[in-house]
Amino acid sequence: MTQMDRLEARIERALEKADGRPAPGKLAAALRYAVQPGGARIRPTVLLQVAAACGDPDPKAALSAAAALELIHCASLAHDDLPAFDNADLRRGKPSLHRASSEPLAILAGDSLIISAFDALAEVAAPAKALALIRCLARHTGMPCGICAGQGWESEGEIDLAAYHQSKTGALFTAATEMGALAADQDPAPWRDLGAMIGAAFQVADDLRDALGDTDELGKPVGQDARLGRPNAVEALGVAGAQARLADILAGAIASIPACPGEAALARMVRATAERLTPVAGASRQVPGE
Amino acid sequence: MTQMDRLEARIERALEKADGRPAPGKLAAALRYAVQPGGARIRPTVLLQVAAACGDPDPKAALSAAAALELIHCASLAHDDLPAFDNADLRRGKPSLHRASSEPLAILAGDSLIISAFDALAEVAAPAKALALIRCLARHTGMPCGICAGQGWESEGEIDLAAYHQSKTGALFTAATEMGALAADQDPAPWRDLGAMIGAAFQVADDLRDALGDTDELGKPVGQDARLGRPNAVEALGVAGAQARLADILAGAIASIPACPGEAALARMVRATAERLTPVAGASRQVPGE
Repeated sequence: MTQMDRLEARIERALEKADGRPAPGKLAAALRYAVQPGGARIRPTVLLQVAAACGDPDPKAALSAAAALELIHCASLAHDDLPAFDNADLRRGKPSLHRASSEPLAILAGDSLIISAFDALAEVAAPAKALALIRCLARHTGMPCGICAGQGWESEGEIDLAAYHQSKTGALFTAATEMGALAADQDPAPWRDLGAMIGAAFQVADDLRDALGDTDELGKPVGQDARLGRPNAVEALGVAGAQARLADILAGAIASIPACPGEAALARMVRATAERLTPVAGASRQVPGE
Repeated sequence: MTQMDRLEARIERALEKADGRPAPGKLAAALRYAVQPGGARIRPTVLLQVAAACGDPDPKAALSAAAALELIHCASLAHDDLPAFDNADLRRGKPSLHRASSEPLAILAGDSLIISAFDALAEVAAPAKALALIRCLARHTGMPCGICAGQGWESEGEIDLAAYHQSKTGALFTAATEMGALAADQDPAPWRDLGAMIGAAFQVADDLRDALGDTDELGKPVGQDARLGRPNAVEALGVAGAQARLADILAGAIASIPACPGEAALARMVRATAERLTPVAGASRQVPGE
């Protein structure tokens, strides 16, 4: 069983717990639709790789943390796709959740997945570790600096761009590295920069894909940033400038990896992720949908 | 300082934590609007009274639990009022959150308040107690049997009425008695029935108010159940039948109170709450808005 299989099994367990009897069947199906089949599972993968780099002394805690992080990410996609936000018809190559079910079910599925995420962390056996993970996930998810805050900035007349990017995209990557360290009984603070830089790289790569990609390849609409007037690295720097910026950020990310048993392997993983994420204009490289 | 003042101060502390710098100001204001000024704060009051009846050995934990429960309740009101659900214009005598701000901010405020609730519980000093409270709140909030499930039943063609009422209205009252016991280091199981019965009484009282009340008195629209085709005790039993049913449930609730130091005082509280909640046709008794 690979680590990805174990992650999927842990996510499946959370979905089964949410589908006890009696449960409203359409909402239970909506939770499953929002989570499976998964996209690239990038955030939980980063979390598990940081835990592995730290020696992974508590694999069950790492898996619960990774599953919780992915549940939160899927909740955010269900809500971000709603008509009130992106009004997206497609997600991961299939109709977005509210198109496939309904707006009420998409709102409730997002709410339920947020709750399932905290519930999954509350199952971590070591109480102090469970609480540290819960506080960490809450900080990177809610207000004032989590992904909710990131979406909230889009309702402001004047946007604090640094806070916007750090919270909208960076927060869950910072959560990934910090929670990976916490799950492995390490101080999360030295891991913060790596998460922030992977998040920044991911944002630039996403901007490039949004500007260069096509819908079939991404499984979601492209050109959304320009259409919605959102800040975008390609608009600010041009394609070549954005590509150079992406390379710089990734070099910084690799340099920031704290000394740990799996330091070299983690650096290779960041490099491989970078190659996978970097779009090449005109090429039709397959990028798994988010 | 009364217990209600202490509760408001604990809620205020959660709102201040959500409003750090930099935070998107409109979303921070939306969180505050959703929570303050409060309605009757019935659920946290029940929680604090159960903790008091158990001797209240850990008042800080009880206050954090009470604040978390009210934050979740306010989140559910913000989402339930959305156009996708009740499409309510009024709440607590003022415009509903999405009318006062916007749909995106109302969705994000609900999400953020859910997260703040779990974060408040993670601050409880005793780790095992904090985790027990988190698991209890998750169970009564998410799927398959929390308030999200309750709303989810409204999307089903065939409704399991018992599951619908228990999850939609009963869940947070059951959370109130169970969390009150947990905060006071007691086994929550014997307190479950009291919560369920207070919830059932509250549901019948709400049905009576919906059928008999007027908008000015309630601070929210009346006649919603009939308009939305939702199950309602007045429709099933008539006004006198529903009033008799309410009296029966409350007698059962009082009989279910476990032996504890504050048993008599708690029985008096349940009776007083019942009197406050029971609407009298034609009278204009003031009932605080939910």
